[in-house]
Amino acid sequence: MNHYQVGVVIGSLRKESFNRKLADALIKMGPPEFTFKHLNISDLPLYNQDDDDHPAESVKRLKHEISEVQGLMFVTPEYNRSMPGVLKNALDHASRPYGQNAWAGKPAGVIGASIGPIATAIAQQHLRTSLAYLDVPTLCQPEAFIHVSENLFDEAGNIGNERSSKFLQSWMDRYVVWVKKHVIP
Amino acid sequence: MNHYQVGVVIGSLRKESFNRKLADALIKMGPPEFTFKHLNISDLPLYNQDDDDHPAESVKRLKHEISEVQGLMFVTPEYNRSMPGVLKNALDHASRPYGQNAWAGKPAGVIGASIGPIATAIAQQHLRTSLAYLDVPTLCQPEAFIHVSENLFDEAGNIGNERSSKFLQSWMDRYVVWVKKHVIP
Amino acid sequence: MNHYQVGVVIGSLRKESFNRKLADALIKMGPPEFTFKHLNISDLPLYNQDDDDHPAESVKRLKHEISEVQGLMFVTPEYNRSMPGVLKNALDHASRPYGQNAWAGKPAGVIGASIGPIATAIAQQHLRTSLAYLDVPTLCQPEAFIHVSENLFDEAGNIGNERSSKFLQSWMDRYVVWVKKHVIP
Amino acid sequence: MNHYQVGVVIGSLRKESFNRKLADALIKMGPPEFTFKHLNISDLPLYNQDDDDHPAESVKRLKHEISEVQGLMFVTPEYNRSMPGVLKNALDHASRPYGQNAWAGKPAGVIGASIGPIATAIAQQHLRTSLAYLDVPTLCQPEAFIHVSENLFDEAGNIGNERSSKFLQSWMDRYVVWVKKHVIP
Repeated sequence: MNHYQVGVVIGSLRKESFNRKLADALIKMGPPEFTFKHLNISDLPLYNQDDDDHPAESVKRLKHEISEVQGLMFVTPEYNRSMPGVLKNALDHASRPYGQNAWAGKPAGVIGASIGPIATAIAQQHLRTSLAYLDVPTLCQPEAFIHVSENLFDEAGNIGNERSSKFLQSWMDRYVVWVKKHVIP
Repeated sequence: MNHYQVGVVIGSLRKESFNRKLADALIKMGPPEFTFKHLNISDLPLYNQDDDDHPAESVKRLKHEISEVQGLMFVTPEYNRSMPGVLKNALDHASRPYGQNAWAGKPAGVIGASIGPIATAIAQQHLRTSLAYLDVPTLCQPEAFIHVSENLFDEAGNIGNERSSKFLQSWMDRYVVWVKKHVIP
Repeated sequence: MNHYQVGVVIGSLRKESFNRKLADALIKMGPPEFTFKHLNISDLPLYNQDDDDHPAESVKRLKHEISEVQGLMFVTPEYNRSMPGVLKNALDHASRPYGQNAWAGKPAGVIGASIGPIATAIAQQHLRTSLAYLDVPTLCQPEAFIHVSENLFDEAGNIGNERSSKFLQSWMDRYVVWVKKHVIP
Repeated sequence: MNHYQVGVVIGSLRKESFNRKLADALIKMGPPEFTFKHLNISDLPLYNQDDDDHPAESVKRLKHEISEVQGLMFVTPEYNRSMPGVLKNALDHASRPYGQNAWAGKPAGVIGASIGPIATAIAQQHLRTSLAYLDVPTLCQPEAFIHVSENLFDEAGNIGNERSSKFLQSWMDRYVVWVKKHVIP
């Protein structure tokens, strides 16, 4: 049986981030042949092209970690009707220098949670635009704009209601098929 | 005569940034009643909502500087078919905490330079989306996707060819009218 | 007292369109100096540049009607995460031929209703992108993604609950200020 | 050897459309196991949800043609910084009624030509947004914003310069791999 490792990128640095909780609940829904690893983006500097020749240790670490995974999972809030600057900064770092884009070819899924009514639709759209450019084939459907309601999570950090649980399991199932289809042998 | 101060935000941290050069050339085209001030975004931390109650000094400084200007000018490259993470991070910081959006109501212009053929069209579109949400009325036309050619700048840092110079002057002229129309008395 | 006429464009052709109902309810909230006129886009042909020199009567009528209004109001659903083709087709027609863009300079507001949870956020974003290009200054805030709930409309076609009514009145109030500010004398 | 049929959708109805020419030149670059069929979208009515239960013959024909192809190729100009209304109208028709989206699961490529400098970047971005929603996996790279220069086509309608020819052949090669990977057996 092949084994697949997925790098998980959270778009929020907040400690009690709903998106981090969502990621952790999702990870438990993955099949046995999948393992998930959080990629830390909180210690990256602000991207500056002048540093392309001598990147910070945190940048090298991120790029190395990406090189070791077979798939990517982006779990992100929306800030000001786009993706968080924090997340975009990570995309920018690992895409550089020119010709050394670490993201290229890694299949991805995009999902996000918010407490607001319109969820994370525009953030996900802008993220998909960057991912297409970065040559990251991204799962289309099911689209997943998760509304954070009172019973989204139970006390153990699992999904706390059956409807959300079923939906997220169906998302994970299609994500798994997508990753397997796109993995570069 | 009224006096107007404009805050200039550059989307690239690179020292020899074409967008910084473009901004500096543009500033010289402004009328006598306008002064322009660069807003530094290079020393901001990555935005983390947990810090909303005790923001870094650089965040407080940026928000204070924004509060003192009557208009905004965004001059930015495109990274990975969106705005740079660096720029989005600055938008996020000064929009927070909830209810204390420093950008609100300040009229803006958006412009960008690139050496590539498709210029900065998508970055500007994503930026406009965030600015609309941030309640920043943004100049529509002339759209300005500046291609960096060999003679865009002369040795003194002015625009080095008449065609570009005329176009950028027309941009500045309409920008000035836009700012004056929208300034909150 | 100046008088203002606003052209209203509905993005859906459906007879019982929620967006048409929303437009009609909104119109009743306008001040006495504003009148509203529906602009018919249902009888336009599909845009074909070959017809620029001899446009259909419906195209001429639309362009003439736009020329006579001082403001624009777009009330539209979202189809397939963008604006409806019907609406985009109308934008395309009245923007042509090159140099004879009928929309230019008319201040606008954008609003939309949907029964789905994410409302019309992406349609409005794409519409704003086209409007910026068409030189149509568009009201930023309040953003209005209206969720069609059971009591959104009462039997007389007015807004049926106080919360929505207050919000939509605040939208109209800011829209009115926006139009007045931008009208070309 | 398997055989693949691709449906080609042109975003412009103009007779001498550059995008139609580009499509025809591209088609000649396809491998022997691929055939290409133009899908006519010029005789569709404007989409009206009221007709979902009794669609026009042209709508039924389009949906039937889509059901018979294994892949999709969209070749489109940009109108007013979005996709043409004509193209969006076709997307809307074949996506309806709810639950009977004819596009779903068909792998696609997106490409466009323009005479202007910024090419078709934003049109392609908006199109990709709709395609993701329609569950159409779309080729990421190579991105193809084709600039119509004097020697783009030769008199026989082939690509008239080697640089463009090589680029478009590389696009076709990756498109072919993409379609084969995604075809539903």
